[in-house]
Amino acid sequence: MLGAAAALASLTALGRVDAQTKRGRGGDGTLPALPEFRRLVAANRILANEGVVDAFGHISVRDPRNPKQFVLARSRSPALVELGDLMEFGADGAPLEARGRTPYGERMIHAAVYEARPDVMSVVHHHAYAVLPFTITNTPLKPVIHTASLIGAEIPVWDSRTKFGATDMLVRTLEQGRDLAKTLGMHTCALMRGHGAVVVGGSIQAAVLTAVYMLVNASVEHEALALGKPEGLSADEIEKSATTQLSPLALDRAWEYFCQRAGVDPV
Amino acid sequence: MLGAAAALASLTALGRVDAQTKRGRGGDGTLPALPEFRRLVAANRILANEGVVDAFGHISVRDPRNPKQFVLARSRSPALVELGDLMEFGADGAPLEARGRTPYGERMIHAAVYEARPDVMSVVHHHAYAVLPFTITNTPLKPVIHTASLIGAEIPVWDSRTKFGATDMLVRTLEQGRDLAKTLGMHTCALMRGHGAVVVGGSIQAAVLTAVYMLVNASVEHEALALGKPEGLSADEIEKSATTQLSPLALDRAWEYFCQRAGVDPV
Amino acid sequence: MLGAAAALASLTALGRVDAQTKRGRGGDGTLPALPEFRRLVAANRILANEGVVDAFGHISVRDPRNPKQFVLARSRSPALVELGDLMEFGADGAPLEARGRTPYGERMIHAAVYEARPDVMSVVHHHAYAVLPFTITNTPLKPVIHTASLIGAEIPVWDSRTKFGATDMLVRTLEQGRDLAKTLGMHTCALMRGHGAVVVGGSIQAAVLTAVYMLVNASVEHEALALGKPEGLSADEIEKSATTQLSPLALDRAWEYFCQRAGVDPV
Amino acid sequence: MLGAAAALASLTALGRVDAQTKRGRGGDGTLPALPEFRRLVAANRILANEGVVDAFGHISVRDPRNPKQFVLARSRSPALVELGDLMEFGADGAPLEARGRTPYGERMIHAAVYEARPDVMSVVHHHAYAVLPFTITNTPLKPVIHTASLIGAEIPVWDSRTKFGATDMLVRTLEQGRDLAKTLGMHTCALMRGHGAVVVGGSIQAAVLTAVYMLVNASVEHEALALGKPEGLSADEIEKSATTQLSPLALDRAWEYFCQRAGVDPV
Repeated sequence: MLGAAAALASLTALGRVDAQTKRGRGGDGTLPALPEFRRLVAANRILANEGVVDAFGHISVRDPRNPKQFVLARSRSPALVELGDLMEFGADGAPLEARGRTPYGERMIHAAVYEARPDVMSVVHHHAYAVLPFTITNTPLKPVIHTASLIGAEIPVWDSRTKFGATDMLVRTLEQGRDLAKTLGMHTCALMRGHGAVVVGGSIQAAVLTAVYMLVNASVEHEALALGKPEGLSADEIEKSATTQLSPLALDRAWEYFCQRAGVDPV
Repeated sequence: MLGAAAALASLTALGRVDAQTKRGRGGDGTLPALPEFRRLVAANRILANEGVVDAFGHISVRDPRNPKQFVLARSRSPALVELGDLMEFGADGAPLEARGRTPYGERMIHAAVYEARPDVMSVVHHHAYAVLPFTITNTPLKPVIHTASLIGAEIPVWDSRTKFGATDMLVRTLEQGRDLAKTLGMHTCALMRGHGAVVVGGSIQAAVLTAVYMLVNASVEHEALALGKPEGLSADEIEKSATTQLSPLALDRAWEYFCQRAGVDPV
Repeated sequence: MLGAAAALASLTALGRVDAQTKRGRGGDGTLPALPEFRRLVAANRILANEGVVDAFGHISVRDPRNPKQFVLARSRSPALVELGDLMEFGADGAPLEARGRTPYGERMIHAAVYEARPDVMSVVHHHAYAVLPFTITNTPLKPVIHTASLIGAEIPVWDSRTKFGATDMLVRTLEQGRDLAKTLGMHTCALMRGHGAVVVGGSIQAAVLTAVYMLVNASVEHEALALGKPEGLSADEIEKSATTQLSPLALDRAWEYFCQRAGVDPV
Repeated sequence: MLGAAAALASLTALGRVDAQTKRGRGGDGTLPALPEFRRLVAANRILANEGVVDAFGHISVRDPRNPKQFVLARSRSPALVELGDLMEFGADGAPLEARGRTPYGERMIHAAVYEARPDVMSVVHHHAYAVLPFTITNTPLKPVIHTASLIGAEIPVWDSRTKFGATDMLVRTLEQGRDLAKTLGMHTCALMRGHGAVVVGGSIQAAVLTAVYMLVNASVEHEALALGKPEGLSADEIEKSATTQLSPLALDRAWEYFCQRAGVDPV
């Protein structure tokens, strides 16, 4: 996906032992290479490589240095995001120090979810092709395979039109973001009509694993509908299986695998 | 897709700072490396890499030096097109200087659209597999996801048989091209029965983005039909979302991404 | 698909100017590197790369030195076939000089088709996944897109069981091959129930192009069935379009493209 | 899937002529590089490369040095498994010498199958996406193409809930494994509701070939259902064809192909 030279440069940047102080910022304004930030870069590459995002979509992390802030790339396709692209945002979604960089138009999704959900450490917004059909029909997306149990037993659907009428479909204001966050409630995923989805996690790895298997589940459920009435996992099974999928046994194995496939060092 | 040496040579050619005069032609008859022409080469590679075209299909640009002319590759698969393959055509679709090169059999699609639509700067003709089913059935292709809003609310279908009877299915004459352009009207896309589609844009980047998400929309709409009756975007949403998708926020991000994936320098 | 060293060695072998006499055989028993034989190696790689064949399937060419013979690789997956793997077979399907090499179990398909069809210069036997569903249901495979017109208006289905009862499904005897050839008749393609297809051409390039777009057509027709009743090309359109697709305009362009994608020099 | 350096290192490890004694263990505790163990590493890579497994799934081999033991990788995604990741397990599924390595949570699948089936030399557990829909609907998976005849005429479905109620869906105890093995009986494949499948073979190569074509068959059968009622192979055809597919003619050809595609030396 990247030229050899660019890929090498990225890998070097990702793997670099950084001498910057943990709370500070690099002399050139770049964020320090904390594990969370390097992991966020890796997560961008993984989501692109696994087909969760394409030119569009994004992932953020709650700032480990200040939980009222969050960190998100500048407006750039996830496949290309590097450490220098990361920007800090305040609780209101305003960039703390833009330095001429354009932020994503939909950063308010992240601001509103971090505000509403103190338990959430990472937020993914994506338009995975396999998931989109479930946003425009009445067939509910539900866990039908154990690896996808972490998407949760119920996945609500948000429709921008209900409260905001005809828009350009983007979540542009904090008010819109809060309305979406209200629909998300305490769930792990929410669908957005004709648009995509939001996925949250207690860590970057958890959010990424959930987003990937949300896509796999959508695809399997879709195919199963051609064979008959798909039988989903029971609520009990979903809860027990989700706990297993979020344990180191499954999460660490998947993270190492996703990193290798995306050509980034596991961090 | 290309051998390493060939790819390197191409990239070098694309990135080269060209000393030729802007209005002139290279000493060897090659077109000058204007941004529009280098972008056209990149667009060929992108359309191939994103699966919009395969061995067949093409993209042209209105000549920035003379709006009555257009530039299109010689008869070669888009994945392989280089700067030296570009040819100039007059308003009637005749090559200005063939120098032994064979033009595409369907260049009249481009000639007729540029004639009918002064607002159009670039034309794509493609046979994307996901779009083809919509050319041979009665299910209308319509925007069901916001990233595809730029395909427009209505996509007419042209049937060569209506006016020209049984042909070899190609648009070979200016008369045929004009009939297709009439069906296209002021729309952005038109389908061609049992054949493919034509997509137009106010720039190469816009035409490419539209063609790519036309394919994505077709795929999502197709899959949604297995789940129920897909709900499309409203006319208002389509208009507002299309404006957003054509803004630099979305267009520049997608172009950088497509170029990197296709292994060409963004230009 | 191949390691770098192996790929390099193959490419060198393919591109080599061969000093062997046109009618002779190399000192080591290898066939001379006639264009037809180098093209046959390229065709093997192309069919694998385009997903027409996988571990199984094969392509042969009528021997340009003796039209009563044909040339086919030893029992090896097409993706891996090299010049040294090519073997000569007599009209009865027996190897002329095996030198310890195992021939394909189904070489009788080729023997029988060359016997029945003097117009045929190349035969492909494949199990393309997209085509297989049409071998086990009553939905007929028919050209619905112009690029696939060369598969022909009618594609008969052969069932090994009709004449030979329960077998291991392979065409192992000349008698079985002749029965299949009889079903094929003067058509370009025939399906084999629960097994695959046979495709013939007036040249290697024609057979390969037909096999590739047979797959594309199957996929498009399959998807169209979810949208409504797919409208096929008319018999007139099929005939005219097939002539165009077999002209140098289309055939040469596609061959160059397929070769580049498969990493072989066009020959 | 792997960086160049890592890939090179793996290939070297796979190809290495190992001076360790056949019955012994390397000085560093690593298993000796017996053909079966090197083949097991290759099988891991192949299953990942062919899409049979993703982050999850595993393959084991009965220990050639002691048929009461089996060898399986530590808890690591199959795409990344190397010789040093292989662990030995006793008949009860307990690791013989863990040395700090975490075993797969579902190793009891393997323990129970080796216990119940002395004829089995290799066991695959996978969650191939194309197979999963058949685990949650009433449509039976059955051989519809001859290359998949080796999956067997009947494929039973195991449901963890029947005997164990709501669990985390994993086969964690020997009791659960034995219940699954009982459902498997003398069949070659069994499906697991909402989870995946188990596939057995008389050799690693046979188990891999079966698992790959189980996936292909699922995909073809699924697509055929959109075209009509798919006609399966008869019981006689399945038996005869399976014998052919397991003969060196087919098995060796496929193994060489799978190895090359996965970037490992055939062993």
